[in-house]
Amino acid sequence: MNKEIAYGRLEALFERLNHLAQAQGMLQWDMAAMMPVGGADSRAHQLATLTTVRHEMLTGALVKDLLAAAEGEPLDDWQRANLTEMHRDWLHASVVPADLVSSFSHACSACEMVWRKARPAADFAMVAESLAAVVRLTREIAAIKSQALALTPYDALLDQYEPGGRAADIDAVFAELELFLPGFLQEVMAAQAPAPSLPAGPFPIDRQKALGERLMRALGFDFDHGRLDVSAHPFCGGTPDDVRLTTRYDERSFIKSLMGVLHETGHALYEQGLPAAWRHQPVGRARSMSVHERQSLLVEMQACRSPEFFAYLAPLLAETFGGDWDGVALRAANVRVEPGFIRVDADEVTYPAHVILRYRLEKALVAGELDVAGLPSAWNEGMTALIGLTPPDDGVGCLQDIHWFDGAIGYFPTYTLGAMTAAQLFEAAGRAVPTLMADIGRGDFTPLLAWLRANVHGHASSLSINALLIEATGRPLDASVFKDHLRRRYLR
Amino acid sequence: MNKEIAYGRLEALFERLNHLAQAQGMLQWDMAAMMPVGGADSRAHQLATLTTVRHEMLTGALVKDLLAAAEGEPLDDWQRANLTEMHRDWLHASVVPADLVSSFSHACSACEMVWRKARPAADFAMVAESLAAVVRLTREIAAIKSQALALTPYDALLDQYEPGGRAADIDAVFAELELFLPGFLQEVMAAQAPAPSLPAGPFPIDRQKALGERLMRALGFDFDHGRLDVSAHPFCGGTPDDVRLTTRYDERSFIKSLMGVLHETGHALYEQGLPAAWRHQPVGRARSMSVHERQSLLVEMQACRSPEFFAYLAPLLAETFGGDWDGVALRAANVRVEPGFIRVDADEVTYPAHVILRYRLEKALVAGELDVAGLPSAWNEGMTALIGLTPPDDGVGCLQDIHWFDGAIGYFPTYTLGAMTAAQLFEAAGRAVPTLMADIGRGDFTPLLAWLRANVHGHASSLSINALLIEATGRPLDASVFKDHLRRRYLR
Repeated sequence: MNKEIAYGRLEALFERLNHLAQAQGMLQWDMAAMMPVGGADSRAHQLATLTTVRHEMLTGALVKDLLAAAEGEPLDDWQRANLTEMHRDWLHASVVPADLVSSFSHACSACEMVWRKARPAADFAMVAESLAAVVRLTREIAAIKSQALALTPYDALLDQYEPGGRAADIDAVFAELELFLPGFLQEVMAAQAPAPSLPAGPFPIDRQKALGERLMRALGFDFDHGRLDVSAHPFCGGTPDDVRLTTRYDERSFIKSLMGVLHETGHALYEQGLPAAWRHQPVGRARSMSVHERQSLLVEMQACRSPEFFAYLAPLLAETFGGDWDGVALRAANVRVEPGFIRVDADEVTYPAHVILRYRLEKALVAGELDVAGLPSAWNEGMTALIGLTPPDDGVGCLQDIHWFDGAIGYFPTYTLGAMTAAQLFEAAGRAVPTLMADIGRGDFTPLLAWLRANVHGHASSLSINALLIEATGRPLDASVFKDHLRRRYLR
Repeated sequence: MNKEIAYGRLEALFERLNHLAQAQGMLQWDMAAMMPVGGADSRAHQLATLTTVRHEMLTGALVKDLLAAAEGEPLDDWQRANLTEMHRDWLHASVVPADLVSSFSHACSACEMVWRKARPAADFAMVAESLAAVVRLTREIAAIKSQALALTPYDALLDQYEPGGRAADIDAVFAELELFLPGFLQEVMAAQAPAPSLPAGPFPIDRQKALGERLMRALGFDFDHGRLDVSAHPFCGGTPDDVRLTTRYDERSFIKSLMGVLHETGHALYEQGLPAAWRHQPVGRARSMSVHERQSLLVEMQACRSPEFFAYLAPLLAETFGGDWDGVALRAANVRVEPGFIRVDADEVTYPAHVILRYRLEKALVAGELDVAGLPSAWNEGMTALIGLTPPDDGVGCLQDIHWFDGAIGYFPTYTLGAMTAAQLFEAAGRAVPTLMADIGRGDFTPLLAWLRANVHGHASSLSINALLIEATGRPLDASVFKDHLRRRYLR
């Protein structure tokens, strides 16, 4: 092994891996937004083959040697950060034996298929055995990664979605929220006025689309590097140079679709803001799925649920759909609190309780302290304690989310970490740019985007999640900022 | 090398290559139909990486040994045909040294870029040097493939597009056309009535699209396995399970777009008709680009320029666009003859002369009998002799087609072979299905599609081009069928 060139060879290899991953990203977007039903089988083969080819390239014996050799080469800080990301990719890909990866992948696909029937039937027993297999294999993988990463099994899973994240830190901030939220919820519910009435639809889909694109443009989305299309489940896909957003439309109501577009635009701005000069290297990618969620929540929940945003939006709605729109009423209709069974429909105040429940349960599942058979009753007890509602059946209870049934155990806490971090970042942006809210009120998002480019997007993966937050806001995650935000929004 | 398993390993390898090639096909469609301009650079990387990965897989030392070993294994006819196609793929990919492939690819890209400026400027001198480089490298490649395939250099190039095609055979049928066409053209021009007038536009694009999809459906296109979209240059892309057609629209005129849709639907029906059980193996692919062109010409020029088709189309046009449409006038407007400078605008009668000119010139270029510097004057002399028109400049002369400037030397004859073969296939279909034309007049294309499925599509690459034609029509290519077709259409 020629030590001098190991790092350079790794850059070439990871660039190639990146091109193939980007090809996959585009094909996944197409699958959701364009592909006719009959293309599914061929597409599955294309994607699986790309996964296999990438896995073989990444886990070949050579890569391990190159990584070791590169460690000893004289590298600058950027190269060192890049090497860290390469090592992370290699470790997560290579540490689990191929047959276990394959068993897990098949167990997840099978479980998800059963879940798609079990949920509408509200029949947990139907999917219990499949889920037990997923949990058993997840534990095996967690045990192996725990060894390799010197982390607890749960942290080893969490690390896939939130690099450097630790349950001990999450426990602390979640505990603070748990102390605060129940009393706060009571206060808000007591003070909340009845929902205002707003102009009724229908809202033609072509106008909804035009409005969405107009707001995307205002937020800074570059249509030379992306598109807006339709898919059953809205998402942000594609590549940093070609970001593909999707939404879905309902003629009877535009607000859910529009807020979805704003949410996905938050993701898109992050991708489009990654440094072009770092393109195709691991350090040039978005920091993580969890930091991505922070960007989308910052745009959707912080910037675009503010009174200033609704004041800006009201005349645009009148122009787009006709009718009489009022910013104050719009805001009142869109920042309401109402406890319910379903996480994805939850408001900002009750959402954390949904997440805390799932976080506790998945930790217990991974630790072997909770059996799959005991999940429904544990769920219902938790809902009663945390939100004060007992699900009438498992369809609106422990069967509601795809995550566990699809093998994504260790992801849930990132939603609430995301909401808290978004509040903290937005507060820092407001301190740095005193005119921020007034600018938003005029539909000028340029100062916000400039701050995000400089403080988040432009760092890509060169900083850890914690370092990124400290550089941008001056401190690690602090639950008090989120609490202040909720007080300001819901009690003033 | 375990001889027993060589063939099985090759099937696995070629299946993987096919999945990657299909991924490329989808990304190429997206590039033309969906991608924003800013995605071009990333997309070029994705496609180039896929090409490199496939090339490395196909030309690795192992494949040569496996191919040799599989030759000695006990294989059935289908496996033997599949092995022949594998060998063909491997030979064309591996016989030319990688550095020559790379030089050629760069020379073609560079030349095409210059040509894009030289054509509108009608400035042959601008591109002469770039084209000379392409021709020089083409000769080198032809010499190498000539050795490996035991063919003349020109036949070695032709073989890439028309497997098994030989210049000697083409010379014979082209000579027969050359004897026939000039006198025939005179007769047609003398007998041709003035162009009839048809209802004027505008023709709204959404209605053009709906009509195109309606006709695609009537022809047998399966929208569960494909789509119709828009691109600057219409084409048929995607994969057999997910065929992506494109067209472009002009509000002022619908016929060119519609005929383009019918042409591409001919391609699409071939892809959708390939045997599903053979999917992902080389023998299961369409026979060649040239056989593909036969399918598109059969639908566009044979089925859909018939009096019966125009009689079926007229009431659909009235329903779609309003106005008074008459099948006889429609036909008269769309099967007119008018000699001109431009191949892609040429009618069915003068088109072969355009092709014969190019065929002669490219043979001379490959043989070294013609220099690039001598091309413009040779072109103009040929046009004068064959069509009776002398181009006023090279923009409407030897600069008009992208093919040579993009490195596709050896392709041109397949257009006229395609037109002749399409006539011969259609004539055979008509003999086999006596109601064929009456069915088309009622918009029922089921019998035509059934005949094509059984006699062309269903064979995929299991037969040679000649064997396919003989099985389907009872004889090898016979210019008299095409001549009869022209006489029937233009002199009756």
